[in-house]
This record gives sequence, C-alpha cells and structure tokens, in this order.
Amino acid sequence: MKCPLKFKQMEKEFYKKYWHTTSHIMAQAVKRLFPEVKLGIGPSIENGFYYDFYREKPFTPKDIEEIEKEMKKIIKENYKIERIEMNKQQAKEFLKDEPFKSELLEEIQENIFSFYKQGEFIDLCRGPHLESTGEVKFFKLLSIASSYWKGDENRESMQRIYGISFKTEEELKNYLNFLKEAKERDHRVLGQKLSLFSIHPEYGSGLIFWHPKGAIIRKTIEDFWKEIHLKNGYQLLYTPHIADSTLWEKSGHYSFYKDYMFPVMYMDENKKFQLKPMNCPFHIIIYQTKTRSYKELPLRWAELGTVYRYEKQGVLHGLLRVRGFTQDDAHIFCTDKQLENEIKEILDLAFFFLKSFGFSDFSVFLSTRPEKFVGTIENWELATKTLEKSLKEKGINYEIDPGEGVFYGPKIDIKINDCLGRQWQCSTIQVDFNIPEKFEIKFIDEDGKEKTPILIHRAILGSLERFFGVLIEHYKGNFPLWLAPEQLRILPITEKHNQFSETIEEKLSENFRVSVDLRNEKITKKIKDAEDEKIPYMLIVGDKEIQTGNFALRKHQKGMLGNFTLKEIEENFKNEIEKKLF
Amino acid sequence: MKCPLKFKQMEKEFYKKYWHTTSHIMAQAVKRLFPEVKLGIGPSIENGFYYDFYREKPFTPKDIEEIEKEMKKIIKENYKIERIEMNKQQAKEFLKDEPFKSELLEEIQENIFSFYKQGEFIDLCRGPHLESTGEVKFFKLLSIASSYWKGDENRESMQRIYGISFKTEEELKNYLNFLKEAKERDHRVLGQKLSLFSIHPEYGSGLIFWHPKGAIIRKTIEDFWKEIHLKNGYQLLYTPHIADSTLWEKSGHYSFYKDYMFPVMYMDENKKFQLKPMNCPFHIIIYQTKTRSYKELPLRWAELGTVYRYEKQGVLHGLLRVRGFTQDDAHIFCTDKQLENEIKEILDLAFFFLKSFGFSDFSVFLSTRPEKFVGTIENWELATKTLEKSLKEKGINYEIDPGEGVFYGPKIDIKINDCLGRQWQCSTIQVDFNIPEKFEIKFIDEDGKEKTPILIHRAILGSLERFFGVLIEHYKGNFPLWLAPEQLRILPITEKHNQFSETIEEKLSENFRVSVDLRNEKITKKIKDAEDEKIPYMLIVGDKEIQTGNFALRKHQKGMLGNFTLKEIEENFKNEIEKKLF
Repeated sequence: MKCPLKFKQMEKEFYKKYWHTTSHIMAQAVKRLFPEVKLGIGPSIENGFYYDFYREKPFTPKDIEEIEKEMKKIIKENYKIERIEMNKQQAKEFLKDEPFKSELLEEIQENIFSFYKQGEFIDLCRGPHLESTGEVKFFKLLSIASSYWKGDENRESMQRIYGISFKTEEELKNYLNFLKEAKERDHRVLGQKLSLFSIHPEYGSGLIFWHPKGAIIRKTIEDFWKEIHLKNGYQLLYTPHIADSTLWEKSGHYSFYKDYMFPVMYMDENKKFQLKPMNCPFHIIIYQTKTRSYKELPLRWAELGTVYRYEKQGVLHGLLRVRGFTQDDAHIFCTDKQLENEIKEILDLAFFFLKSFGFSDFSVFLSTRPEKFVGTIENWELATKTLEKSLKEKGINYEIDPGEGVFYGPKIDIKINDCLGRQWQCSTIQVDFNIPEKFEIKFIDEDGKEKTPILIHRAILGSLERFFGVLIEHYKGNFPLWLAPEQLRILPITEKHNQFSETIEEKLSENFRVSVDLRNEKITKKIKDAEDEKIPYMLIVGDKEIQTGNFALRKHQKGMLGNFTLKEIEENFKNEIEKKLF
Repeated sequence: MKCPLKFKQMEKEFYKKYWHTTSHIMAQAVKRLFPEVKLGIGPSIENGFYYDFYREKPFTPKDIEEIEKEMKKIIKENYKIERIEMNKQQAKEFLKDEPFKSELLEEIQENIFSFYKQGEFIDLCRGPHLESTGEVKFFKLLSIASSYWKGDENRESMQRIYGISFKTEEELKNYLNFLKEAKERDHRVLGQKLSLFSIHPEYGSGLIFWHPKGAIIRKTIEDFWKEIHLKNGYQLLYTPHIADSTLWEKSGHYSFYKDYMFPVMYMDENKKFQLKPMNCPFHIIIYQTKTRSYKELPLRWAELGTVYRYEKQGVLHGLLRVRGFTQDDAHIFCTDKQLENEIKEILDLAFFFLKSFGFSDFSVFLSTRPEKFVGTIENWELATKTLEKSLKEKGINYEIDPGEGVFYGPKIDIKINDCLGRQWQCSTIQVDFNIPEKFEIKFIDEDGKEKTPILIHRAILGSLERFFGVLIEHYKGNFPLWLAPEQLRILPITEKHNQFSETIEEKLSENFRVSVDLRNEKITKKIKDAEDEKIPYMLIVGDKEIQTGNFALRKHQKGMLGNFTLKEIEENFKNEIEKKLF
C-alpha cells in the first residue's frame, strides 16, 4: 500500500487550496457550536490541514462528531467564498473579540488586510481558497493535539484539530486505510510490543535503550556492515565520544552546530569538554599522526560512531528523531584523480546495502553549490561534475537540488521509499573542502610535493537508530529471517515432547537463533503466541514427528509449509539467510 | 622473564630497610657533591627508592654518574648507621638550613625526634635502617623525574631521583634486564611504532583513538566476546552514554562516585545530564520495562559499554589508566537458588576467555564483608559462602581479602600474571545487594509472590582499553595469528612477481588479513620491514614459487618454515586461528 498523498506538483497546488478551505469550514463549524472559542491559525499542511483553537474545556470525541456534522451542513449550504479587504482600523474593529487574530494583525506590515468570507464566517487570511464551500466533498477530522500559541511554551495552550479532505470517497477511504496501516506499523508501538527498545524521558529524552531483541538485530546489522566494509577496502576506527571544546572550535563545528551540541562540561585545569556531534575531526586527528604518502591513498576509514545532538524536545520522535545516535560513518581521503572511482564505489556500496535490507525504490538528489560556500569555484565544479558523471555512468536517475549543497561541498543524497511510499533520507555522500583546509591535512604526492587530499564524508544507513525505526515500519516487525531476533520457535505438542524438543533446540542453536516453548499450553495457543511475536518459523514436535524425523514447519502469516527433516530445514534457512530473502 | 621483585613477606621487610639505607647513601653523596641542595624526603617504595632534592639546576646524566661514584665511596667507607635522638629545639637548630625538613619537623606531634647518622650525614628519619653503609652491595640510579613538594603544584618543584639496590650483582643484572624488557614491551611505545592507537592530550587526556590496526584487533576481541557470550546464554544490550543526573542520584553512584564522574551538562528545561561512569542503572531500567517472572531467570545481560570516569591527570597511563573505556560488562539477575550455578559458570567463562588470550597464570581473591555495608548479614553470608563454595568446587586456588568487599556485596577478583610476572586486575564478579533495593527490582516467583532477584555484576576482560594494553605488553606486539592486524604479507622477489602476488593476495584475503609489498625494494629489505612490523607470516613469491605452486613461508622471529601450497597454508592458518595458538 502506497501513501495516497504522492501528488504531482499541480495537484499539490490544488490540495493546498482544498485543505485550506476545509480548515475554514471546520473553524466556521466550531464557531457555530462553540461561540466562546477564540481562533488561532488554520493552514493547509503537507498531509491535510489543522486549525488551532483556544478554549478552556478540551474538545471531546463527541464534540468532534458534532463539528463534523456541522461541517457537512456548511458544505451543503454551499457558501460562495469571497475575498474582502479592510484597512487597519476596520480590521482591528472587526477582530476586537479575537485576541490571537488581533495579535497577528499587529505583526503584518501592510495597509490593506485580506479576509475570506463564507456565509457568516469571515477570517483574516491570505488565501487562496476554493470558490465555494460546496466544492469540498469528503473530509475527516483525524486527531486533536495541544500546541502552544506561536510555539512558545510560555504562551496560551491551544487545541489543534487535524483533518483531511478529498474529492472522492475512495480517495478518503484509501487515505484512512493508509493511516490505519501506518499506525499498525508505528515503530514505537511495535518496539514496545515486541520488546525491541525503549525510551525513558525521565532519564533523558531521545536516548535509546536497546533491549535484547533489538540489540541482536543491531548486532546483525553491524556485523554485516563491518564485514562488507572490510571486504571493500575500508578500515575501521574507534574514537572517543567527547573532546576538548577547542577541537570543535578548530573544526568549525562549534560555530555552525553550537545549538545542536550538548552543553559544555567544565573541568578543572580550565578545560572544557563536549560530546561529539560528528566523528570527522577524530578521523582527521588520526590521519595527522603521521606523514601520509600518495601510496596510501585512497584511505577509507569507517566507524560506527555514536554522536549526540541536542534536538529540541518537540521534534523528538521514537527512533526516527533522537538525541543520541550511531552513524555508519566513513571518511575517504583521496586524490582528485581518485575521486570519481571513489564516488562510484560508494554508490555501488550504498545500493548494495539498501537493497540487502529489502528496499528497492529510491530517490536520488544531487545538491549543488549554495550561495555561501568555502573552497574555490574550480574545485566545486570539478567535484559537482564528478558526482554527476558518476551518477550518469552508473545509470542512476537523479534530481538536481540547485544550491542545496552543504557550505563545504556538493553532495548526493539517497532516500529510500518504504512500502507505504514514505521517503526516508539514508545515504549521503559529501565532498568536503572545509575540513582539509581548517586542519591543513596533506599528503606527499608522487612528485614529492605536499598536496591537500580530497575528503569525502559518507554514511549509508544514516543512523542505526533511525534505520532500525524505518526497518520496523517497513517490515511491520516481520523481519526477514537474517534479521529476526528469534528465527525459529520449537513447539512441542504436549509436555512429553519437551525433552526431544530441547535436543533439537540445542542442535539448531549452533547455527540459528532458536527457542523452545515448554509451557503447559495447547499447541494452538503456542502457535498464536509465536504468530503474535512475529517469529518467522515454527517447528511442531509431536509423536509422529519424533518417529519419522520429519517435522511440521509453519511460516509466520503463511501457515503450514509441510514436513521437513532437520537437515532440510537447516539448508533452507542457511540459503534464506545468506540471500537475505524476504 | 619474570619480575625479580616478587619477594616473600620477610624479604619485603628486609628490602624496605635495604632500599631506605641506599636512599640515605644517595642523599649523602648528593650533599657532598652539591652542598647547596636542600633535602626533601627519601623513602623506600615498592620497587626501590627515591629521594626528592631541591636544586635550581637540573641534575645531568653526568651528575648522576658522579653521584653513583660517590655512593660507591660511601659504601666502601662503611659508616656505622646510628639512631640519634634530639628534642625539638635541638632538632630545629640542627635543621635550620634545611627548609623542607624543618617544615616536616613542625608537623610531627612528638617531643623526641629521631635522626639517622652515617659519617657526616645526619637525616631526620623514622628508620629503620641497615647497620652500616657497607651492607649495601649493588645499586643503580634509574631515572630522574620532577615532583612537587608535598605533591602540591603550588609548591616548589623538586628533582626526584629513583634507584634500586640488591645484595648480589646477579640480582641487579636481572632486574635491569627486566626493566629493559619491560621498556621494550611498553605498550605506549609499541602502540605508536605499530600504529595501533594514539592519545592526544591537547584534545583530551586519557581518551583513546584506535587506529585501523588497533581497531581490527578490538573488533576481533569484540566479535569473539559476543559470540561466546551468546553461546553461553547471554543476551546483548546497547544503552546510552549519558543520562539525567537524577538517575545517578537514584542509583547512589552520584554520592559514591561523584569525584570520578565527568562534570554536569546543564540543559534547558532545568535538566542536568552526565556521562555514565557505569552501565548498571541502564540495565536495571530495561529490567523494569515489564513484570518479570521466575521463568525468565536467570537473565544474563551483557554490554560492551563505554563509560567515562574523571581520573586525575597524574595517574593517567597510556591504555592502562584512561578516562574513557569500554567495559565488557554483564549483569545477571537470578534467584538465590541459581546463584551458585551462575558464579560457577562465570568462573568457567572468565578462565576460558583469559586462557584464550594466552594467559595461564592467575591470582584469585575473595573479598569479604567490609565494616560499612548494606544488606543483611544473612545475605552477605549466603553470598560469600556461595562464592567460596564455587571456587572450592572448581578447584581454584584463592586468597581471602578480609573486609575488602565492596559496600554492596562480596566479590571475586581474578588477576592475570603476565609474562613479566606483573599482575593485572581483569575479571571481577560482584554480588550486589544495593541496587536491587534502591531500584526495588522484583520478579514473580513460582508461588506467585513478589521477590527481589540477586544481582551479579561481572566483567571478564575488565576494560577493552586496559586489556589491549596488557596484551600489547604481554605479547610485545607479536600478536597471535588470530589477533594480528595483518596476518600474512606477500613479498614478491622482484617487480615481475607483483601481478601474481596480487592474485594470491586476492585469494587469501577471502579468509585472512593479507597484504602485498609491491615496493621496488630488495627482498631482504621487505623481510626486514615485515619483521619490524611484527607480521606473523611472510610469503615469498619468485619464479620458482610461481612455477611449482609451492611458496616459501617465513615466520616472524623464526625464519623460513619451508615450502607450502596455498591450500596447506590456508589449512594451517585456519587451524592456528581457530585454536588461538601462539
């Protein structure tokens, strides 16, 4: 199922109006039913609309139903939507009972103010809108959340009602199904249900505790990641999580990322320390421990480096937006002649990894020189052309994001589109002209002269935490065999089959993650629980199985596959794991 | 070679006097040669003696030679050593030209002061000493270091001269050889020479940067550690490096370890964060995410958890004493009935690991209830008896350290004795009665009642950083094949053998860490460099080798082993790696 909100540009413009008008219809209904309510703002957003209301009593589900009913009426009444203009005095007078709107009015630096009128409802608004309320066909109010006026926690707390609308009933139905599906895939819910990880805001928001089942998945990802990197000519590094603040000043991170860095630890000896928001300077320091020769290049240094960034409380979201995360980071030091080959190899590696994890739909972006930049235009052009040439020669479709490169260099971003069509930024390949200069890193070239290497930053999965969140949602917790924390559960039919089951467990555990359900429960209950826990395979052990050596194998969500010997099962499993099938 | 300072208790008492007297002889010589010098203190220490002198000009190596010559004279002159007593006024008068000694005098709360006299030299001193200077037979001054008077950096800077002495020339020779050997094994020197790791005090003292060659060893250790733990019923966890300070207050770490914790990071929202000095509370939090049943116990949770402790600048020492290190930590939650079996399994696991890394000589200590403790005496006795019973039944020799348990429970410590006989604390197994109480952790027992599990903390390698330091020194950088960063280097005899060598490299790289030396250098130079870099094996490739498919294999420090096919080499390597031979 794909997200039904993948509109083309023209439709996007249309829905902006469509949703904005639905938002006004909602506000009109609210004012009719609850005249005491004061209006905040009510824009269209990426996926629908909302309106912020100030009201002391919280809206109840019953209220929402009433609002929806009233909205239907307003649509049926099919008011023409008209733009009205007022001067400041008229506008002030008109909004005298709407304190929030009045506040907005004061901030607008214009003489003429536009309002939109539909029936008795008139709202300060820039528009644009549909022609009439009757044009809105099918809508649904989705949720209520609390928000602060102007996002300022010292201001009034508003009630924000979210909604969506479409031209056809089918579109609405599809979207609601999509939301239901997305909710069922919510990694926060599945993370708790399957005991994969937890977050404990009382001991620190945005910090992830990996439980045994999540940790074994992470280990499997890390092992695979390291193995493939070593095979591809990378070397591993481990570096500290903290450094003297002077390092961050030298690297320039302090001035650019200060607000995202955790606060300073003031040590004695007049020293200041800070948690690392990035791994780069540490790799540079290792580079500088000796004189480097062109013979050593390219140097490909990779680290699963845990960094800490102080994201605002409000934007934290499960595993997807956190304060501590592990980047699958690498830095490549190479000559300008080597750049193209390095970029191509990184592209190959990135797609290899993303495909190994079951993703097949990608969007690739090439970001070019922004207005503010460091380095010479020649270098930027060389690097940008090399990135573009690499993409072309690899036959990769891409879009150009003009001026969206980082200040230090152009970059390629790869986003994965998950099974719901949602886009997740994962891989990034960035050329950096800043750090080699700041740290004056050099190598001795063939001609004996000191030169500056090109530095490439790259991450493929992005952050292990975020990638794990995406994986949980993409697979709905039904991980492919190679990642599943528990790969097979052995289910003895009665207690007298327990002992035999345990011998099988011991044997299969040599190569797989296996458990046995020894509880005194009916086999149907054991199967149900294994299904609920999303165990990929179940092996039923009863009299017949023990006699024949053929075991009934069940697959999660598929049911019985037939009877197999242990050897057959082991071979099939090995094949499925090695090929990373799903 | 073993450290020759492994004395029995009686000899220890003797050498205390012997070295103390040698220290006085050194001071006497210094005063004869440099009368302007002011005396500090001159005790015997664990491995010899020192004397602190105040002198504006630094002592030169030539001065040290002169001092040694003068000491020999004093020994030959064989002065009787006599104890003299003075009252305060006499002592003050006598020491009027020795400001440091005078200061000490003021601090002694006695009426009668003891001095020791040998010839013209009389020193304020508690003794005891030998009978005469002639009893000191063979000595050597070893080094000069600077120290602050009374260890206070605001006081005078002193010159501390270290030395050693023995009754026989052979003992002295042995000890000097031991020192030479220890110096050659110094992990800080080898770490730099072999590019294993580096430390950069300008960006933070005590923080380790693992270079590619060190990192691949660490990865090998970690992989082995994880594999064996998973096979032994452990589950892995990953937890954050920071937590809200309230967590450390709740766990009691703040009050006990405050001085060792890195300073607070003051966040907005009135939050305080701190780097973790220990992993325990994080594991407890995961334990508490659900109601636990007796059926789940024992739970064995392991983490390679990087912790940060603010050790004083002065005690930092390479990898052996650092500020950031990775514990191979585990917490076991079990019932009292399970305790004995758990302890025995940990002991087995600990010795298995330590032996796998090539250690065979251990000292085991059982530490019992200290004066200050938490928990009931019954629980302490049960736990201590269980630890002792486990040691006995496993046939492990141990010593009891009475009263040396941690305040929260008794413990077993395993120290390894390295090839120089130096002792290194590695494994620790600690029963904890504190944390289960503080966090009120529970499980539902078979009878349906809520009970408190027993918590065992344990680490086997201790810290990866420290263990790596010990490994470097133990092996003198000549790591066994399974740990060696580069296992085999292929050495083409001339450039025309390069291509063939590269095809071999590719083939062998599938299973081993292999490189090829393509430099235009003589084969003797290539061998010498590989020997210097301590590569375990070298494969020589020339015409004959290519024709016959039999390759000359050299072993580091051993020379030529003979000619082998690639298949033979691969099989031998696999065997050597699997068995962790050295």
